Amino acid sequence: MRPRLRLGMVGGGEGAFIGAVHRLAARFDDRFELVAGALSSDPGRALSSADAMGLPSERSYTDFREMARAEAARADGVEVVAIVTPNHLHRDVAVAFLDTGVHVICDKPLSLTVPEAADIAAAAARNDRAVVVTYGFSGYPMVRAARELVREGALGAVRSVQIEYAQDWLALAPDAPPDTALGGWRVDPARGGSGGCLGDIGTHAFHMAEFVVGSAVQSVSAEVRISSPGRQVPDEARVALEWADGAFGSLWVSQIAIGNRNALSFRVFGDRASVGWHQERPERLEYARLGEATRTLVRGDPSAGAAAARASRVPAGHPEGYLEAFAQLYREASDLLSAWPDRPPGDTVADLPGLREGVRGMQFIEAALESDRSGAARIALPSTP
Amino acid sequence: MRPRLRLGMVGGGEGAFIGAVHRLAARFDDRFELVAGALSSDPGRALSSADAMGLPSERSYTDFREMARAEAARADGVEVVAIVTPNHLHRDVAVAFLDTGVHVICDKPLSLTVPEAADIAAAAARNDRAVVVTYGFSGYPMVRAARELVREGALGAVRSVQIEYAQDWLALAPDAPPDTALGGWRVDPARGGSGGCLGDIGTHAFHMAEFVVGSAVQSVSAEVRISSPGRQVPDEARVALEWADGAFGSLWVSQIAIGNRNALSFRVFGDRASVGWHQERPERLEYARLGEATRTLVRGDPSAGAAAARASRVPAGHPEGYLEAFAQLYREASDLLSAWPDRPPGDTVADLPGLREGVRGMQFIEAALESDRSGAARIALPSTP
Amino acid sequence: MRPRLRLGMVGGGEGAFIGAVHRLAARFDDRFELVAGALSSDPGRALSSADAMGLPSERSYTDFREMARAEAARADGVEVVAIVTPNHLHRDVAVAFLDTGVHVICDKPLSLTVPEAADIAAAAARNDRAVVVTYGFSGYPMVRAARELVREGALGAVRSVQIEYAQDWLALAPDAPPDTALGGWRVDPARGGSGGCLGDIGTHAFHMAEFVVGSAVQSVSAEVRISSPGRQVPDEARVALEWADGAFGSLWVSQIAIGNRNALSFRVFGDRASVGWHQERPERLEYARLGEATRTLVRGDPSAGAAAARASRVPAGHPEGYLEAFAQLYREASDLLSAWPDRPPGDTVADLPGLREGVRGMQFIEAALESDRSGAARIALPSTP
Amino acid sequence: MRPRLRLGMVGGGEGAFIGAVHRLAARFDDRFELVAGALSSDPGRALSSADAMGLPSERSYTDFREMARAEAARADGVEVVAIVTPNHLHRDVAVAFLDTGVHVICDKPLSLTVPEAADIAAAAARNDRAVVVTYGFSGYPMVRAARELVREGALGAVRSVQIEYAQDWLALAPDAPPDTALGGWRVDPARGGSGGCLGDIGTHAFHMAEFVVGSAVQSVSAEVRISSPGRQVPDEARVALEWADGAFGSLWVSQIAIGNRNALSFRVFGDRASVGWHQERPERLEYARLGEATRTLVRGDPSAGAAAARASRVPAGHPEGYLEAFAQLYREASDLLSAWPDRPPGDTVADLPGLREGVRGMQFIEAALESDRSGAARIALPSTP
Repeated sequence: MRPRLRLGMVGGGEGAFIGAVHRLAARFDDRFELVAGALSSDPGRALSSADAMGLPSERSYTDFREMARAEAARADGVEVVAIVTPNHLHRDVAVAFLDTGVHVICDKPLSLTVPEAADIAAAAARNDRAVVVTYGFSGYPMVRAARELVREGALGAVRSVQIEYAQDWLALAPDAPPDTALGGWRVDPARGGSGGCLGDIGTHAFHMAEFVVGSAVQSVSAEVRISSPGRQVPDEARVALEWADGAFGSLWVSQIAIGNRNALSFRVFGDRASVGWHQERPERLEYARLGEATRTLVRGDPSAGAAAARASRVPAGHPEGYLEAFAQLYREASDLLSAWPDRPPGDTVADLPGLREGVRGMQFIEAALESDRSGAARIALPSTP
Repeated sequence: MRPRLRLGMVGGGEGAFIGAVHRLAARFDDRFELVAGALSSDPGRALSSADAMGLPSERSYTDFREMARAEAARADGVEVVAIVTPNHLHRDVAVAFLDTGVHVICDKPLSLTVPEAADIAAAAARNDRAVVVTYGFSGYPMVRAARELVREGALGAVRSVQIEYAQDWLALAPDAPPDTALGGWRVDPARGGSGGCLGDIGTHAFHMAEFVVGSAVQSVSAEVRISSPGRQVPDEARVALEWADGAFGSLWVSQIAIGNRNALSFRVFGDRASVGWHQERPERLEYARLGEATRTLVRGDPSAGAAAARASRVPAGHPEGYLEAFAQLYREASDLLSAWPDRPPGDTVADLPGLREGVRGMQFIEAALESDRSGAARIALPSTP
Repeated sequence: MRPRLRLGMVGGGEGAFIGAVHRLAARFDDRFELVAGALSSDPGRALSSADAMGLPSERSYTDFREMARAEAARADGVEVVAIVTPNHLHRDVAVAFLDTGVHVICDKPLSLTVPEAADIAAAAARNDRAVVVTYGFSGYPMVRAARELVREGALGAVRSVQIEYAQDWLALAPDAPPDTALGGWRVDPARGGSGGCLGDIGTHAFHMAEFVVGSAVQSVSAEVRISSPGRQVPDEARVALEWADGAFGSLWVSQIAIGNRNALSFRVFGDRASVGWHQERPERLEYARLGEATRTLVRGDPSAGAAAARASRVPAGHPEGYLEAFAQLYREASDLLSAWPDRPPGDTVADLPGLREGVRGMQFIEAALESDRSGAARIALPSTP
Repeated sequence: MRPRLRLGMVGGGEGAFIGAVHRLAARFDDRFELVAGALSSDPGRALSSADAMGLPSERSYTDFREMARAEAARADGVEVVAIVTPNHLHRDVAVAFLDTGVHVICDKPLSLTVPEAADIAAAAARNDRAVVVTYGFSGYPMVRAARELVREGALGAVRSVQIEYAQDWLALAPDAPPDTALGGWRVDPARGGSGGCLGDIGTHAFHMAEFVVGSAVQSVSAEVRISSPGRQVPDEARVALEWADGAFGSLWVSQIAIGNRNALSFRVFGDRASVGWHQERPERLEYARLGEATRTLVRGDPSAGAAAARASRVPAGHPEGYLEAFAQLYREASDLLSAWPDRPPGDTVADLPGLREGVRGMQFIEAALESDRSGAARIALPSTP
């Protein structure tokens, strides 16, 4: 067995959703060992969380800067840190660890603003360390299959992209009292960012669009809405996407779309074929070639292609899900970091989202908000992130 | 049995799609009798078509004006005419028959332009005759159920509408020779209108949006595309919709979306519940109330409500389809015309699209094209049609 | 237009389900004209029903024998009679009309018993007249496509057949009072037959199995159940089917399977491929070849094959349903009868169920009941019907 | 953190399917630590597998008896052993470890024969050790929800059960050469058992039936088939199930059902409601109450109930899959073993399959084979396992 990478975690105390996901994903393929954490800024919660996770108390910190310093001083200090705090802390945590030579795995969105993202990029560059950004949905085998079909030309030229991400956990009944707390830090502009749904789920959808199409969105025009009295950030947005080569897309995100739990889906239409995928039935990819019967490609089948096979763990018909997709990013991160600064053999990390994708996400949020303020004007995205 | 209404038809010779649909729909409930037709401007085809449909040769015409005159002179002349010609003839045919006192059932879109639609409206008014416009999809029982749920307040305030209509019959493989004939009169601006997909299928989607939401769209902003070299009208469009009360919608139409046959679907989200429907599985309506498990309402079930029951013919589980939906409009047209100028008992025609809806469709096409020409500017629709 | 066939109807007064279906189906393609009827044995209901259907009062009868005699005496008497009475009358009505030279279209099951079916067969033979039996589901285009795939060898040798027909309209809540009337004549052994669900829906499933597989079931073993206190006929049954060539099938029917409306479905597995179809989404056929991605064949598409195309009316994506399938049988019946006693050109009636299939249905019911009485013993079906 | 249980593994060398599943499942919730293994009887493969899994070479064994002895002699020896060998070794491995005081987690089927299962039971009893049997599908949250609905009476009295498990990995094209090796030890009666598909997947389906219904099957009648020349064990079977209280079931298993990967599904009909579930879309449970619209219950939603919530890890809409279900058994096994010989607090192990369920599975296989040999005679299952 290759040695496990020594992993630290900032944020993700007991009860936090995404922290638990990162831990499960890191453990999945047994390539990481959680050895230290600043799991909460509350000392009691930090300690009880550390205990629940089997961390020794001397490696449970309440301050991430202290953790960075202390771990850097140890021979067995963390090699990589997972950042699962609210968004407003991403930049400072990332920079603190990068500056002590520790790689970063950061949950999306990368930061609160584009300049903050640039700070992280600068720190990564000056320390020659890696930043992985966990757009977890891109780890699904059949998302990889879709990307591969596009890349191999099976779809022909991409013409139209329909992508959406709908949830309803921020929907409030009209007769319920206003609840500005619903959503926690995610709806607090100071901690989650002013993009609201654009940052929380829109960045996932935007990344997915570029990931599957395989080229950069050139411009966006957007309108956002706030549906709930007292809420300070958008809970719904529609965004028109333009690609350089003329592809044309619509992106819709909503966190008040009653009946939707986590309905991220895309359909990509080329001039030879189309593909369609839905996150809540992730094992299937609908694949329609012009003039032929639609085929349902299934993870684990030979017809699903090589990229899906590389990201699969169990045979077809034994459903893999969200955690397996997320774990795929951790597996690839372990490949990346184990070989660092070289590229790993076989370049197994070609699909792993990193700094570039993290910065793109921030550019997307900012451009969409600017477009909305300008009457849905078309706003160009930087051509190089 | 109530006497059958004497029906004439203009257009719809042998082999034409929508003419055959109108004849099947008219015959469905045995309330119309086809007695005369100008089925084709080609004399031979007109005659052979008339013969195939059982019309006597003396009531087979090659010119619709002659037909209008001759039928008006007969005691047993047509009472209502179905217009199933290419769009550019709708206005002249409709006016010719209205001016001889004949009611009109006109396929959508109502005309080629807004002024033409106004001409039809004027002729209907001066002759006190009815105009029915066959937005056939609005006859589906579960579409009626959706409209009823909204009207009764089950959805609360409508916030978001996602509607789309995707087809692929105008998709051309990139290695196929350009084919400007593909699509026939539908892609000829002189005969089908300059809206292309906006007129051919966009008007259906737009009508559906207003029909289900139950109130008028206030403004649109739109972008259209032509994907095929040499094609003169749009084959894809995305349109943002705004309602007066703040509802927010996205409408996407494409005729090059490979893998889609006739994929008209809508999702309407209120602040209490949502509904979702797809034309290719028309018997079901997904109905999700905030915080509850999604229910699948099925045509023919008591839980589908009264409006669906009124539009149903056979018990639940015996699928009804497109022709039954279309026939529902003919059934309601027979109610309307049999009682004319009174309203029929029970007001069974409240859901039947007519002049108003036909004119709205033309306003939609024109506003969308104007918006596209103006950089996707928001264009107001007339507040009264 | 070919002259319409003069159709009479016995049974099917206002409010009856299957009578209305036959009338709609007969009218669908405009090849029949309903000219006479004994719609009810109740004189008032017979007359009001006739009036509602536009029959002249002199051709509305209350006694089917009188109708047979009177119509035989007219130059414009009925050429074919649709029998839509409760099952116990099928034999007498059929024989009465066959003996006056009138063809018969009889709803399934053909009769109450095997000997009654033999009486009908004898009458048809001695008068050289046709008997069509309306297993309406066999008219669906994608059922035809399945049959064609099997016949053409695309499935290879058929090994396994899973077929079921589940409804719930006879389910009674446990706290409801016993209701022996629920189900009407269908649950009265004297009028519906002692097979209960075997006759009412099991014959459909059995016909479908032989229709798609294209060869005769050799033996059955069966168990039946009565779930409701006081009910006199089975409301659930499971039947094992054996084909001569070793194919192996399971047939399950239930009328108390809560949540099912009209869930007739089959899956046929060969050694090269399989097909699967469900009556409540009749436009699609799942087609899986060994080692390949499953294809969804859709009615109206070229990939659906020639048999489906012959039974289709509107383009793909415009759903056809139950009435269209039923109408297909009437269309083929008109071909059969118009050419009688010759076979129609193109032999368009090769898929039309007739006497043979009607008799098979009765043999099936009887064998299944005998098997159940014998402890689920395997009972051979007659090798020639 | 509670101390991890020290886990050994017998079988499951590199490349083996189910061994990898057990390791992932054991690691999922971080409650086990793999410390020793007899991963293969081939010394080289054993060693390289151990190395790949991070086991020290001194705890990699090639003989399970040696492993049992050596581990028993260590203070830090294994506390529980996972048995993932071919079936014919289950008994000897289980007894060897039970006799050294080690708990057993054994893959299904429990053994090769009923007497072998009794040997395991005896060893467990004399050593007071636990045996868990990994019917992994029973760990799915929505399977738990179905069981809970039945137990709470929401379905009323269960009347009918339709359960099936279809795969196609043993299907051979008719023009392929006979391949008696396809399927490996699973199709070798000496190593996999004479039940073939009955043992490999039928025991899963049978357990599921009893698990969801919550009571014991009283008798079975069965027919089995071998479809492939040279194959020695059944690859398809249909089994009729009878419950003591009159419920009536059909179980179909096939490993040659082209187009099916791992299609385990059940539908359970009571006299008040029904539930339906399919392993390949495991997050949903269709729940239909008599006379109401069908509800789709979704894992993670409050409407899915308490049992599903207890077995869930991530929020609704983030798909969990096969590994999570399997991991649930390991989580419950850790509860069971950590408290042993007491019951854990909250009795969280009430749904965990153990010896009883393992023995039932063997009785099922044997009864089904006996029934088949006796012309599908009804064979009673022992009333107490």
